[in-house]
Amino acid sequence: MRIMNQPEETYSCAQAVERLVHVLGADCVSRGAAIGERYFTNYGEAPGERPVALVRPRSVEEVSRTLALCNALDMPVVVQGGMTGLAGGAAPRASDVVLSIERLAGIEEIDREAATVTVWAGTTLQAVQEAVEAAGFTLGVDLGARGSCQIGGNVATNAGGNRVIRYGTMREQVLGLEVVLADGTVLTSLNKMLKNNAGYDLRQVFVGSEGTLGVVTRVVLRMHPRMAAPVTALCVTAGFGQALALLHVARAALPELSSFEVMWPRFCGYVTAHTADLRVPFAGDAGLRVLIECAGRDEQETAERFQAALAEWLEQGLIEDAALAQSEADTRAFWTLREGLAIDALPDLINFDVSLPHGRMEAFVAQCESAIDARWPGAQVLFFGHLGDGNLHLCVSVTYARGESAHDVEALVYRFVGEAGGSISAEHGVGVYKRDWLGVSRSPEEIAAMRRVKDAFDPRGILNPGKVF
Amino acid sequence: MRIMNQPEETYSCAQAVERLVHVLGADCVSRGAAIGERYFTNYGEAPGERPVALVRPRSVEEVSRTLALCNALDMPVVVQGGMTGLAGGAAPRASDVVLSIERLAGIEEIDREAATVTVWAGTTLQAVQEAVEAAGFTLGVDLGARGSCQIGGNVATNAGGNRVIRYGTMREQVLGLEVVLADGTVLTSLNKMLKNNAGYDLRQVFVGSEGTLGVVTRVVLRMHPRMAAPVTALCVTAGFGQALALLHVARAALPELSSFEVMWPRFCGYVTAHTADLRVPFAGDAGLRVLIECAGRDEQETAERFQAALAEWLEQGLIEDAALAQSEADTRAFWTLREGLAIDALPDLINFDVSLPHGRMEAFVAQCESAIDARWPGAQVLFFGHLGDGNLHLCVSVTYARGESAHDVEALVYRFVGEAGGSISAEHGVGVYKRDWLGVSRSPEEIAAMRRVKDAFDPRGILNPGKVF
Repeated sequence: MRIMNQPEETYSCAQAVERLVHVLGADCVSRGAAIGERYFTNYGEAPGERPVALVRPRSVEEVSRTLALCNALDMPVVVQGGMTGLAGGAAPRASDVVLSIERLAGIEEIDREAATVTVWAGTTLQAVQEAVEAAGFTLGVDLGARGSCQIGGNVATNAGGNRVIRYGTMREQVLGLEVVLADGTVLTSLNKMLKNNAGYDLRQVFVGSEGTLGVVTRVVLRMHPRMAAPVTALCVTAGFGQALALLHVARAALPELSSFEVMWPRFCGYVTAHTADLRVPFAGDAGLRVLIECAGRDEQETAERFQAALAEWLEQGLIEDAALAQSEADTRAFWTLREGLAIDALPDLINFDVSLPHGRMEAFVAQCESAIDARWPGAQVLFFGHLGDGNLHLCVSVTYARGESAHDVEALVYRFVGEAGGSISAEHGVGVYKRDWLGVSRSPEEIAAMRRVKDAFDPRGILNPGKVF
Repeated sequence: MRIMNQPEETYSCAQAVERLVHVLGADCVSRGAAIGERYFTNYGEAPGERPVALVRPRSVEEVSRTLALCNALDMPVVVQGGMTGLAGGAAPRASDVVLSIERLAGIEEIDREAATVTVWAGTTLQAVQEAVEAAGFTLGVDLGARGSCQIGGNVATNAGGNRVIRYGTMREQVLGLEVVLADGTVLTSLNKMLKNNAGYDLRQVFVGSEGTLGVVTRVVLRMHPRMAAPVTALCVTAGFGQALALLHVARAALPELSSFEVMWPRFCGYVTAHTADLRVPFAGDAGLRVLIECAGRDEQETAERFQAALAEWLEQGLIEDAALAQSEADTRAFWTLREGLAIDALPDLINFDVSLPHGRMEAFVAQCESAIDARWPGAQVLFFGHLGDGNLHLCVSVTYARGESAHDVEALVYRFVGEAGGSISAEHGVGVYKRDWLGVSRSPEEIAAMRRVKDAFDPRGILNPGKVF
């Protein structure tokens, strides 16, 4: 689709925005002070640069016209969902056009026979979860930002969350996609089948591409059988080796396993000391805490299996102690510990989201702790992770000496990540914050191959420039 | 990597092969009668065209040199694994160089902590299964050709098989890949983590690309917890609606569910009538047969849960009857029925491998049966399928009138597939046999987007030309 006849012509930025208004209508395009702060503020951060224009299309056709025009005018476009990615991937620069998908919201279809839900990309994760549950099914992805994050953003960042060990990441939930390419081409592949090998699986190109290859407008997601309320336990293991052994045993013993979250001692110590009214067992004990959750067809049956397994593990010495939640308040308390919101108040907090082969994790944690402690005495170095997925979160707060910055902590941590063959981003993506570290986890050949894909789908480089690489 | 200094120079085919021999050594390159028939014969078919040369590299470096040279000389290259794909994707033309990965075989590493196995692409599926089982784990993929198919081919075709409902297709098993690109670039991404969002997920580009984008040399696969021996039942449902309802109920009730295979009446009738000594229950009954298999940690426990579920389904009227295998002989008999090898003897047999949204399957089966019966009285039209995956296999044998061919049957079946929003290939890929039908399942925009990927990774078009599209 071509909208401009003379794409070579030179336009000023203001003229380009005028053309957007002309093509899309004034109620679709905002400028200047009319652009609310939330369109240039990433979740929890100070405002960034106000973009040159905000476009909020109401249809796939309008997305297509926006992109075709921006492509012809060489106007960079930043796609925005719920702005909860924490990697700066949706943050605009002053010269960018922001394309928000928020008006493309709603459930298009629930197909009970195929066990699929088709949604518009601007729908919040929570709205999709509720629709799926009302239909008698469960959605595979859940994460803390469920109330504000949008499905399109979940797809663009290949979101993970708390149930990956059971259902996989967002990639494994996506059966079909509709994507608009940089030149305005609409690719509609609303597949509902688990198996489809009719040529290349184009979905895979766009999942996790962080707005750099196309704009997701509609998504077909799998629905899983409805699970009863989860049964949750908090365990103590003597050390990392036991926690890892427990992971393998739990995966084999409990097909209902839906979460396996590990918290290191300093993490638990900090969160329990700084969270009002948090009542969790084993607070003062040594060892790691493991939050295990199971969800099956029948809560009672799951609880019985789970309890029998816990007794067996205690007897085998795999765990030192365990507490099965006896009430919703218990369950909430276990998750409050794990979510550790108190940590957000730490000064100059850096949240790392790395993944490592399981065999390298214990040494990595020890290396980070001792190296950061040695350089910045009194530092907070708090570890927790989705152990089942190989995903560690590390929260660091240090007092910088003059001339030091977050870069120094990042350099130290990412060096260990690289040496362990790990990834600088497990589930949040690269965005702009981790762009300069991509070489830690990817070889020059891999990055060059990524550029081949970028050039194939966005040859003029208008989509989210400066992000990922 | 450049091997030739003057790629523009024109070479005869014989000269090009001379250069291959010169660069790789005579024990790596075969010509003429020295090329065995199996290198130009697809499984179960008459020999095709003898290729101009057969290259069997012994290292990734040799694969790289082969491709760099062929790319510089514009020599088309067909990559071969076990030759069991059934879509003609590995069949060479007389002008092609065949690159066989059979010498790149063996298990490189089993990492119990990460639960991964790293293998060379020429290893047979069965050898990998055995190594994984010896280590106390289970491999997620299993299929009939396990003894001859190779992991590289499984990756290249995104193989499915009998356990997709439990573990997903090959795509979901692949954590890391090493791929050699058309220009000889080696992309080594031997990731072991379940989550890695550090830039684009390049693995996904190569899984299912049928040898047209790169040559897979090494693969990191997930290992799943070891399962006890499976428990198998054969059930009868009154019709398709009940079978589909049973699928949803079984998925929710039995987390150990590993296979859910449906056989239509004509299929069962034909196989039981034409298989010597096959003893299966309900042979003469109406309705559909459903083979259900469960595998959990403990065979006894799984059998008890399964038996209780069967009793419940009988009582609810979801199934008409059920037989739980009481011996290995029973299990083998149930699978012998499902594998239906007797069908292979039918004259001019066409095997379709399609997928459809579940809600469209019943009508599709009826349409195919009545349309084929009407046009070719006395035809065999036999359906079975991996219902859990939306994947139907249709075996057709008709007596053609003068001037008719398989194309006429295909046109009829694929028209119904297209109308139902289905896929012409669920698990075998497109290869060359289904290439002309790709437009049934993919739009011109989708096919154009596939070409963008092809041009990005193989701009000179040397890899498996004429396959997929």
